[in-house]
Amino acid sequence: MRILGIDPGLQTTGFGVIDVDGHSLAYVASGTITTTHLPRGDLPARLKVLFDGIAQVRARYQPDAAAVEIVFVNANPQSTLLLGQARGACVTALVACELSVAEYTALQMKQAVAGSGRAGKAQVQEMVKRLLKLPGVPGQDAADALGLAITHAHVGSSIARLAQVAATTRRNTGQYRAGRVL
Amino acid sequence: MRILGIDPGLQTTGFGVIDVDGHSLAYVASGTITTTHLPRGDLPARLKVLFDGIAQVRARYQPDAAAVEIVFVNANPQSTLLLGQARGACVTALVACELSVAEYTALQMKQAVAGSGRAGKAQVQEMVKRLLKLPGVPGQDAADALGLAITHAHVGSSIARLAQVAATTRRNTGQYRAGRVL
Repeated sequence: MRILGIDPGLQTTGFGVIDVDGHSLAYVASGTITTTHLPRGDLPARLKVLFDGIAQVRARYQPDAAAVEIVFVNANPQSTLLLGQARGACVTALVACELSVAEYTALQMKQAVAGSGRAGKAQVQEMVKRLLKLPGVPGQDAADALGLAITHAHVGSSIARLAQVAATTRRNTGQYRAGRVL
Repeated sequence: MRILGIDPGLQTTGFGVIDVDGHSLAYVASGTITTTHLPRGDLPARLKVLFDGIAQVRARYQPDAAAVEIVFVNANPQSTLLLGQARGACVTALVACELSVAEYTALQMKQAVAGSGRAGKAQVQEMVKRLLKLPGVPGQDAADALGLAITHAHVGSSIARLAQVAATTRRNTGQYRAGRVL
């Protein structure tokens, strides 16, 4: 399975693509989509750059699923509104072509990648480098995006394990109750 | 010129289409796109409904330009974030196919339609009904969307008038300074 991770931002949106085969992860691509070359006030044009950029990444790498970071409210309400619109454009670019979109918080991503929700940016970059056997650390936005893809891969295998356990439980006891994974 | 007005909202997005010929305005269509049939927590699915709905309106009515309301921060930051994402999906649906998008505040719309930024919802509905010679008042979201399209029509004719005045001034004095219209 090929997973596309997206770390949405109005100025810079990170993307990362990985291949998952059982417990094995392989780096495919990563990078950023930036809107800093456009006038700050031209929001429609900036959202178009995000939409087109993600559409290009989708077309080039043909992912099977996507994972997008859940963004949080900012101290500055105006920034919250702008970030929300950027994320809206990113998610829309993914769902517009029927790609399934999972959502994870930064906390969940840090826990999955670095083992702690309090991991700093540098720790996430270092762990992404190790997990994907990269020659160097990726940039912060790309690392976060790759981290989201890794998180989705972990959750996917957790769900598979849970399904296996559940099937065994059903066989053994005849009872089964669905549980919430995350 | 055919103008599509959009009043973005996560639960209900209003749309309105009008034809403009000089000072004459003609109603074409209006309505709402709602996401209330979907689980509240499935934001990607809800954004897809907004994107697909606007894409359908675009395809059916083939507007030449669009006008979208500028949304403001809400007392509840979480609502601000959700509204931002909804607006991001709406604007993205318009720019994805190269449609030019103008942005107006509710204040500008009320001034253009009802003559006062303090006009209430009912006043906007009544004035939209009169300006477009409708048999009845449109719903609030559709009225706001039609109001945005009317605002864009007014601004368009103001710009045309300004260009005419500027051309005359240039001819008469040899001087011309660009002015900000809104």
